[in-house]
Order: sequence, then C-alpha cells, then structure tokens
Amino acid sequence: MQKYICIVLLLLAFPFIFSHAKRTNPDKPCKHFTVYYHTVIFNGTNTANATAAVVREPTKFWNTSFGQMVIFDSPLTKDQSLLSTPIGRAQGLYFYDMKMRVGSWFAYSLLFNSTEHKGIINIMGANLMHEETRDLSIVGGTGDFFMARGIVTLRTEDVDIPRYFRLQMDVKLYECY
Amino acid sequence: MQKYICIVLLLLAFPFIFSHAKRTNPDKPCKHFTVYYHTVIFNGTNTANATAAVVREPTKFWNTSFGQMVIFDSPLTKDQSLLSTPIGRAQGLYFYDMKMRVGSWFAYSLLFNSTEHKGIINIMGANLMHEETRDLSIVGGTGDFFMARGIVTLRTEDVDIPRYFRLQMDVKLYECY
Amino acid sequence: MQKYICIVLLLLAFPFIFSHAKRTNPDKPCKHFTVYYHTVIFNGTNTANATAAVVREPTKFWNTSFGQMVIFDSPLTKDQSLLSTPIGRAQGLYFYDMKMRVGSWFAYSLLFNSTEHKGIINIMGANLMHEETRDLSIVGGTGDFFMARGIVTLRTEDVDIPRYFRLQMDVKLYECY
Repeated sequence: MQKYICIVLLLLAFPFIFSHAKRTNPDKPCKHFTVYYHTVIFNGTNTANATAAVVREPTKFWNTSFGQMVIFDSPLTKDQSLLSTPIGRAQGLYFYDMKMRVGSWFAYSLLFNSTEHKGIINIMGANLMHEETRDLSIVGGTGDFFMARGIVTLRTEDVDIPRYFRLQMDVKLYECY
Repeated sequence: MQKYICIVLLLLAFPFIFSHAKRTNPDKPCKHFTVYYHTVIFNGTNTANATAAVVREPTKFWNTSFGQMVIFDSPLTKDQSLLSTPIGRAQGLYFYDMKMRVGSWFAYSLLFNSTEHKGIINIMGANLMHEETRDLSIVGGTGDFFMARGIVTLRTEDVDIPRYFRLQMDVKLYECY
Repeated sequence: MQKYICIVLLLLAFPFIFSHAKRTNPDKPCKHFTVYYHTVIFNGTNTANATAAVVREPTKFWNTSFGQMVIFDSPLTKDQSLLSTPIGRAQGLYFYDMKMRVGSWFAYSLLFNSTEHKGIINIMGANLMHEETRDLSIVGGTGDFFMARGIVTLRTEDVDIPRYFRLQMDVKLYECY
C-alpha cells in the first residue's frame, strides 16, 4: 500500500519539479553570444555616419566629463568592423557619473531582428572604464529573450574619443524561458 | 524498509518543491490587467492640465525628435477617458533615441494606491513607435507587486503630438509572489 | 520492484529539486545589510566635498523641483557619519518627477570593493519623499551579488537641501545565487 502512495506522491510532485525552466549556473549561461557596439558621436557635420549625440555637456566641476549625457542609436555587428552589416542596434543613454576617474552609467536596449535573434534585451549598470571588463545587468527581455536575465560584459576595444569608440558586448543569459 | 526511506525522502523534498512560488508560463501570466496612460505636455500655459514637461529639446541633427527628453507624472485610468478618476500614476522619463524612425525609450514606475492594487511596478525598455504594439520589461515591484517580473505591452491609441497622447498599457506579470 | 522504481525516480528528481538556489520568502531576505548614502550638491565652490551635480535645473511649471536632474558619485558608509571611511559608492542619476508633491526617481548602482562585499547592485524606482520609507527595486547585480534581486528601502535621515542629504539604504536581497 505505502509503495503506491509513494509513487502517487512522486507523480504528483513531478510536474512541479520540471515545470520551472530556470536552472541558474554561474559557469554555464543558457545563452551566450558576442556583439560589437560602435558609437560615432555627432560633431556637427557627420549627420550620415553619426550614431549618437551629446544631449548634455559635461559640468565644469570635475575634469572627468562628469555630467555629460549621450543618447545613442548604434549598430551592433558580429565582427569588429564598423562597416559590417549590422545584426541589431543598441538604443539608449549613457552619462558620465564618476568624480575621481572617468566612468559612465548605461541604460539601453539591444534590439535584434534577424534570422538568428528576434527580440530585445534590456540592460542597465555601471561602466567602470578603468577596469578591463565591466559587468552590467540584463534585467529583462522580449521575443526570443522573453523574461531573460543575465550579465553583459563590456570591453573597450577601440577608442578615439570624442569621435568613435567600440565596445565588445559579451551577452550571457542565466535565466532563459 | 525501503518504502519508508522512500516516503521520508519524499516528505523531505516536498517543502523544497512547493516553497518556490514561481511557475513561469508565457501563455498564462500570474497577474494581468490593463491601464490607460495619458500624457498632456506642458506648453507654457496649461499648468493645471499638463502632466509632463520637456526637459531637453530635440537635437538638430535628425528630424526624429532625437535627444528630446520628457519627464512625466501622468494619470492612469481604467478606461480610455482622460477625465476618468485615476487609479494610479505613471512617473518617470522617456527620451527619443532613434535616428531613422521616431522611437523613444522609457524608464518609469506605475504607482497604485487603490483598493484594487497597492504597490509599484518598475519598467524599462524601448518604445518602437512604428510597431503596433511594443513590449517593455517589468523588472521589479513592491507592495502587491513584490518582486514581480513581466512584460508591459504598449499600444498608442490616440496621439495629438505635441499636446496629448494616450497609451494602452497591458500589464502581464509572469513572476508573482 | 515498485519500491525500487520509486527510489530511482526520487533520486532522479533530487538534483532538479535542489539545483535551483532560489527560495523566495518575503519575510526572510537571503542577504540583508544597511548602508548610508551621503550627497553633497555642488554649489560652485565646494569642488573637494561635493558628490553630486545638478545637470538640469527644475522646470518653471510647478514648484516641486519638477524636471531637476542630479548625477551623483556619493560615498556609502556603515554608520551615519559623512566623515566615516566609505565602504562603497552609489553612482547614478535621480530626477524630480512629481507634480503635486516633491518626489524623485532613481536609477543607480551601489559599488562595493571591500573585504565585506565585492560587487555591484543595480537599482531603480520611485523615491516618494512624502512617505517615511520607500521601496525601490534591486534588478540585478554582479560579483558577490551575481544575478541578485530584491528591495532597497530608503529612509531620509538628514536633509539640508539644497546642500546635503543623507539616506539610509536598507538592502534586502530575496534572490541570491
């Protein structure tokens, strides 16, 4: 008799055990890919090429660009060339918010509409430019990235401020649905 | 003997199996409701009615309002009428961040303090205005919406830019506690 | 025979049951600590002491500082003294976004690099200044706070606007990894 109870209880439990798709393992993202982000700052004449514009000049208080705000609509490519066909766009804002060093804070979306990825990843966090790599939070997503969470790791690859910079963005999702 | 071990193990497991309230099913939100968001932009004279103000004029680089920023404290209603009694407020920011089309990016809270809902929902994401519906991420919540996650789907219902626009906001929580 | 099947099934199930570290209990955060946030607004002369700067003056529409934006790089201390050795920093943005009362909206990171905590917590939400305590959403984290979610409760402790204010920030994580 007890063995049947046991089996029945177990069968009752199984849907609960397996219904929840999330298994978080810091060493093993459930989705992982890399894109390259290219920003060309508007300088008054490069309307065709520019992908970002300063909407607030730096304050004069500190010489770390503190207070400068930039809004961007920047292409994402699979390789490091600015001239490659974009596979998506990064749209949002960053502003410089560090007093003693140069560092910025980002809030933006990665938008994909290709055969490989269709959907949006939403991101926020600090870009501590003095560190070789910086982790920001992926706080949600839509489409192929429905309800995703994870980390995006930024690495500055090329920088010719104030004109151009390229970031490697290593996207690691730890919650996938 | 083994059957007792089996039952004991199973009973030990049950609190773990059931302690976790989250069961995510993309087809079935754990909470679902719709509100209407009304924004009346301040024009210099409509102090009483206005619910939002431009804090940064568009840049001149592109004719997509790129760079314009708006801060809002806008009523939420249950039906589509601006004159209905608000059931909550939406407070936050949006800015135009698209170069080739008109699109904006939102970061804001939905605040409720009624018999129906008490609590706050925090939201961020891209508002791709050329698409009929746009999904943004619900990244957290408080009160009745403690630790919630989900999607809010925006649909433009009425638009008389730069004076007034109404968005349908379809709130779908997939993680409830 | 069935009892063996039962045990085997159960053993199969166990890794799934226990692999998932998240057990959310609103009464019992998995991590809980308090820090004090100090902001000294730049006034044109206090370069050494200032930790924040106004990047957008208030609009003239309402007398609630509506539209004012502040970017900050503010020390966090373990006790209430501004002069204590910082244990971390809070970096980000707030802006005033309420029409009828004074209230603001925050998006920022708490950055720790001490023996106690190494990592970053990312936060967003409404700071309803007329309420004694306000809950904002912790939407992600890195390092010791990898993938964390939770609530940070703000309490204004000392306020000498426009020069200085101190907030108690009570950090409660409900999802830890």
